[in-house]
Amino acid sequence: MSVLIFAPHPDDDLIGCGGSIAKHLANGRAVHVVYMTSGNAGSRVIDKTSLAQIREEEATRAAELLGVKNLTFLRHDDGYLKDTPELAERMINLVRQHRPEYVYLPHEDDGHPDHQETHRLVVKALAQAAGPWFQGTTGDPWAVPTVLAYEVWTPLRHVSYLEDITDVATLLRQALECHKSQLGEIDYWAMAYGLAQYRGVTIAPGRLAEAFTVISSPTSSFTAK
Amino acid sequence: MSVLIFAPHPDDDLIGCGGSIAKHLANGRAVHVVYMTSGNAGSRVIDKTSLAQIREEEATRAAELLGVKNLTFLRHDDGYLKDTPELAERMINLVRQHRPEYVYLPHEDDGHPDHQETHRLVVKALAQAAGPWFQGTTGDPWAVPTVLAYEVWTPLRHVSYLEDITDVATLLRQALECHKSQLGEIDYWAMAYGLAQYRGVTIAPGRLAEAFTVISSPTSSFTAK
Amino acid sequence: MSVLIFAPHPDDDLIGCGGSIAKHLANGRAVHVVYMTSGNAGSRVIDKTSLAQIREEEATRAAELLGVKNLTFLRHDDGYLKDTPELAERMINLVRQHRPEYVYLPHEDDGHPDHQETHRLVVKALAQAAGPWFQGTTGDPWAVPTVLAYEVWTPLRHVSYLEDITDVATLLRQALECHKSQLGEIDYWAMAYGLAQYRGVTIAPGRLAEAFTVISSPTSSFTAK
Amino acid sequence: MSVLIFAPHPDDDLIGCGGSIAKHLANGRAVHVVYMTSGNAGSRVIDKTSLAQIREEEATRAAELLGVKNLTFLRHDDGYLKDTPELAERMINLVRQHRPEYVYLPHEDDGHPDHQETHRLVVKALAQAAGPWFQGTTGDPWAVPTVLAYEVWTPLRHVSYLEDITDVATLLRQALECHKSQLGEIDYWAMAYGLAQYRGVTIAPGRLAEAFTVISSPTSSFTAK
Amino acid sequence: MSVLIFAPHPDDDLIGCGGSIAKHLANGRAVHVVYMTSGNAGSRVIDKTSLAQIREEEATRAAELLGVKNLTFLRHDDGYLKDTPELAERMINLVRQHRPEYVYLPHEDDGHPDHQETHRLVVKALAQAAGPWFQGTTGDPWAVPTVLAYEVWTPLRHVSYLEDITDVATLLRQALECHKSQLGEIDYWAMAYGLAQYRGVTIAPGRLAEAFTVISSPTSSFTAK
Amino acid sequence: MSVLIFAPHPDDDLIGCGGSIAKHLANGRAVHVVYMTSGNAGSRVIDKTSLAQIREEEATRAAELLGVKNLTFLRHDDGYLKDTPELAERMINLVRQHRPEYVYLPHEDDGHPDHQETHRLVVKALAQAAGPWFQGTTGDPWAVPTVLAYEVWTPLRHVSYLEDITDVATLLRQALECHKSQLGEIDYWAMAYGLAQYRGVTIAPGRLAEAFTVISSPTSSFTAK
Repeated sequence: MSVLIFAPHPDDDLIGCGGSIAKHLANGRAVHVVYMTSGNAGSRVIDKTSLAQIREEEATRAAELLGVKNLTFLRHDDGYLKDTPELAERMINLVRQHRPEYVYLPHEDDGHPDHQETHRLVVKALAQAAGPWFQGTTGDPWAVPTVLAYEVWTPLRHVSYLEDITDVATLLRQALECHKSQLGEIDYWAMAYGLAQYRGVTIAPGRLAEAFTVISSPTSSFTAK
Repeated sequence: MSVLIFAPHPDDDLIGCGGSIAKHLANGRAVHVVYMTSGNAGSRVIDKTSLAQIREEEATRAAELLGVKNLTFLRHDDGYLKDTPELAERMINLVRQHRPEYVYLPHEDDGHPDHQETHRLVVKALAQAAGPWFQGTTGDPWAVPTVLAYEVWTPLRHVSYLEDITDVATLLRQALECHKSQLGEIDYWAMAYGLAQYRGVTIAPGRLAEAFTVISSPTSSFTAK
Repeated sequence: MSVLIFAPHPDDDLIGCGGSIAKHLANGRAVHVVYMTSGNAGSRVIDKTSLAQIREEEATRAAELLGVKNLTFLRHDDGYLKDTPELAERMINLVRQHRPEYVYLPHEDDGHPDHQETHRLVVKALAQAAGPWFQGTTGDPWAVPTVLAYEVWTPLRHVSYLEDITDVATLLRQALECHKSQLGEIDYWAMAYGLAQYRGVTIAPGRLAEAFTVISSPTSSFTAK
Repeated sequence: MSVLIFAPHPDDDLIGCGGSIAKHLANGRAVHVVYMTSGNAGSRVIDKTSLAQIREEEATRAAELLGVKNLTFLRHDDGYLKDTPELAERMINLVRQHRPEYVYLPHEDDGHPDHQETHRLVVKALAQAAGPWFQGTTGDPWAVPTVLAYEVWTPLRHVSYLEDITDVATLLRQALECHKSQLGEIDYWAMAYGLAQYRGVTIAPGRLAEAFTVISSPTSSFTAK
Repeated sequence: MSVLIFAPHPDDDLIGCGGSIAKHLANGRAVHVVYMTSGNAGSRVIDKTSLAQIREEEATRAAELLGVKNLTFLRHDDGYLKDTPELAERMINLVRQHRPEYVYLPHEDDGHPDHQETHRLVVKALAQAAGPWFQGTTGDPWAVPTVLAYEVWTPLRHVSYLEDITDVATLLRQALECHKSQLGEIDYWAMAYGLAQYRGVTIAPGRLAEAFTVISSPTSSFTAK
Repeated sequence: MSVLIFAPHPDDDLIGCGGSIAKHLANGRAVHVVYMTSGNAGSRVIDKTSLAQIREEEATRAAELLGVKNLTFLRHDDGYLKDTPELAERMINLVRQHRPEYVYLPHEDDGHPDHQETHRLVVKALAQAAGPWFQGTTGDPWAVPTVLAYEVWTPLRHVSYLEDITDVATLLRQALECHKSQLGEIDYWAMAYGLAQYRGVTIAPGRLAEAFTVISSPTSSFTAK
């Protein structure tokens, strides 16, 4: 069983579903993270090429710390993510190659344009990967059973799934702190931890949680024995 | 493990999630159906009391045919379903008494006012049943892990779960045909079967399906072993 | 009086409004179908050029069977429909050349990205064709009086018009079966017929219907004698 | 052929669709107006009973001026319009008694609570009047073919029908000025005329228009000869 | 200058806009809090009358600690808030009596039914209080210039105003801890503080913020000198 | 203090917020207008280059008449406004260079595609201009405190701010009449004036107003002394 995460920029995977990643890994599942961009616009002083390299190294360190073995950097231009046939075919191929049980992606109403665009691109790629279509692609069709949308810049209006991440919060914080180049301006840990506190209160006092919208759950699974 | 179905009128349970009911029963789960009204306004010639009695008998026959053992008729006035403290407390008590793993209810955007109101009443009752609140109620708090919204008069815009009901379709048709008093004006089987065909094509040729929105799925279940 | 249909792929015209096409033709109106793409991505084994040719031939056969005389293949790349000045000018020219009384297009909330994009492109072209604008275009301005949005992959939430297609259903099925290359994976007839059954029940038992949203109806027509 | 107008308060009929009323009358159709309330809360100095009487007289004078022969005052309490079985049955009866070809009502998103509630009540009554239901009602079932929603306090987001009211604007102004008790605080003519100017520009320079959403248009009418 | 807060239950004022209250008070404005219910359903063991009394005392202690001088308990039944003429007139009177510059209320999309209903009731009361209407009310008409909607159970999708509450956070925590009867089940401080951390990161590292939607801001204020 | 206006075409600035511009100028603020396109598609007989020149001259005359000193023509192709890195960087630079207190832009739901796209581009540029990001840009980060969305082709559903423009209406009309090339087909003054009448009635009889949605207002400003 494997898990495929789509993140607009390095660190969105951790803010949106880093605790879930840690829990999947703890249960022995392979986790693969696909970064749509390498966040190369996130500075006024470091040039794009250098910044992309720095952020990919930070993502790699965070992955090592968590135990994620498999990262893909699609290296689209940060701030200008666009649908192209090349990108679409790469995304279809990634889905068909990894054949994940679970996909995580940003939710539809996130206010950040790159997050919205990532949502659209992933939803489209999942549909296109599921059938015998698109000659330029490789691998057999694969329909992902479980698809979950996470929150980063805009909280979800309807939460349909909570992941209790209390026990992996310390590890998650260490992973997030690998993204040193980004921590000067915005305290991403305060952001992730604050929202996890807010979401966790509905489980029990003292719990931390990540919140999701269930976009898809496996056909006929609820009536199965 | 038990299943609790909320239906605005007798037959909505079958149209919206009758195949799912049959499958839960086949897997040995207890299914309980709560009818908000007994559909007592569904005629111009039969008086309300007589019609309610007829429709409750039809629902009882359909339940026997399927194997549903437990029906509750809340007997609110058809067409004028309203939130009252008495109704709310009864609904909280039903949730706490049955402690279901699964709840099924009409979806939020169904165009029929009684379906919309049932949606609101159930969502509210589930929240109120979950905590140590409402002195007039009995039973210990119970938070329902899985909540699924079904479609009757208005199809869902976003389907997040499909139930393959091909193998129970014949049984479902027989159950629906127990509602004889309602079949003169509207062909409910054509309605349910037509939509099941439309939903089933995305599973495989020849399949029939019921479609749902996942309102809630069990906390931390997706990362569990 | 003429009718202009915009379809994302060959066969969407039949699934969405094929019965309406047959009825317009039976009443002597010229029907023109514009295919945004030739569905050239709908296979993993047949190359794009060959598949486009096959699907255009299938569409041509279906058109002959129905009596549609006039097809236009815009041949945009399936899966990657995009707004460009060239496409926009061709669409404006088509509207001004045919001066249709009726336009049919996919509805705004259809879940398929090519359908959504076709909706946006057609709505925009209708506005641009209506006034004395866009130097690169030909023909006099034409404001289309009646514009109807049809449903394919996502049912409409609000239906404001029903077309009874019971009497042309057999013909429609034959036309849809001309699209042989596409029928292996998805049973499009089950899909169209299932939804037509569901929509038809609100007319009368045994009727089949296509459902639409009225985007525009002719100015001052409702008060006319 | 007859026309049935539902208005939350006296004068809403004129602001929302007064020009359309005048045009229907000019073409010989019977127009019937149903006022949900008599606007009895519209003052701090005149008591409710007196104000209701004044406003009903104003509505009667405006109706005489336009040529409307038939007014019904439901006399619900202004500001507190509520769904009750009695009101619902009266509304069903009105629809079945008049058997109108056209119904006009406030649109769904009007910001005024009484307008929203009128919308909900009328939509529900139209559905309930259409079938053989509700024993307490009289008259044979009647399904209204054309249903149009007008704008008063909140403009429509999507206009699907325009009525050119230029030629009846003077008459409409005279009718609106019959509502003397209401003209001190808000210049309703400026409101109606301003919006009619804004809506009319898309027809031609100098035209005035009322804008509507088409909620329902007659089944199969667009393909008829 | 005065500030009027509408809260569904005691403690919602603090969770939603308690920091703003503290800042208004620090700047010398009178703050008045209106509790729609006294939260009398928030227990299974304490009867409604006793619980209402306990929670009103807790609210009074929190108010004293913050410096709020003026509390109104409308004492509607917790969980069953409903629009009635009596409630509406009391709310209109409160607005006209206090003539506040600022009103705070729950936002429209809060998932808790009592919060949604409070939103609707306040928006309606503000409109009704603004004009010379409603004979049963007292006081001169008053149109509230600034109206802000706060978040409690569902975060806002669009934030149009942030209040920096870092400097009053300790005081706010002490005030919230006065609501002892409610702190056993849900850690409201974790909830409020978590969300304030999440909202504060967009101001600067280490800041805490309350987020709002601006429903109304004073006419012509942005162009004034 | 300065004001930055983003307009899809020359004249949208006047229709949407021309009265506000006049009032800002009267109070001594610098107003800068950025035209996304020069409206070069607005004719069938004048070629694009000539038309752009004519419309820029018309905009310049209108600006002189009002007293606007600073116009920027971005000269994107009318009807085909698109997000590109070059455009985005120019927009970020404009924001950082002018450091405006106020930004005005079309609202999100305007039915005209160029208006929608301008909305998206401006919202994105404001976010990108606010932080230390985007190496290709110049100037220090600047977060715009007040952001207001105006209405042109589609009225706002929720108005959160009104600007009383009665006293500058004559001047505004003169400015709008500078756009001679556009006045043949559509009476833009009737459009702007009609909507201003409609919006103005809620202030007082005889007033004219521009309506806005407040997208952003300055942090902590409402509690300040």
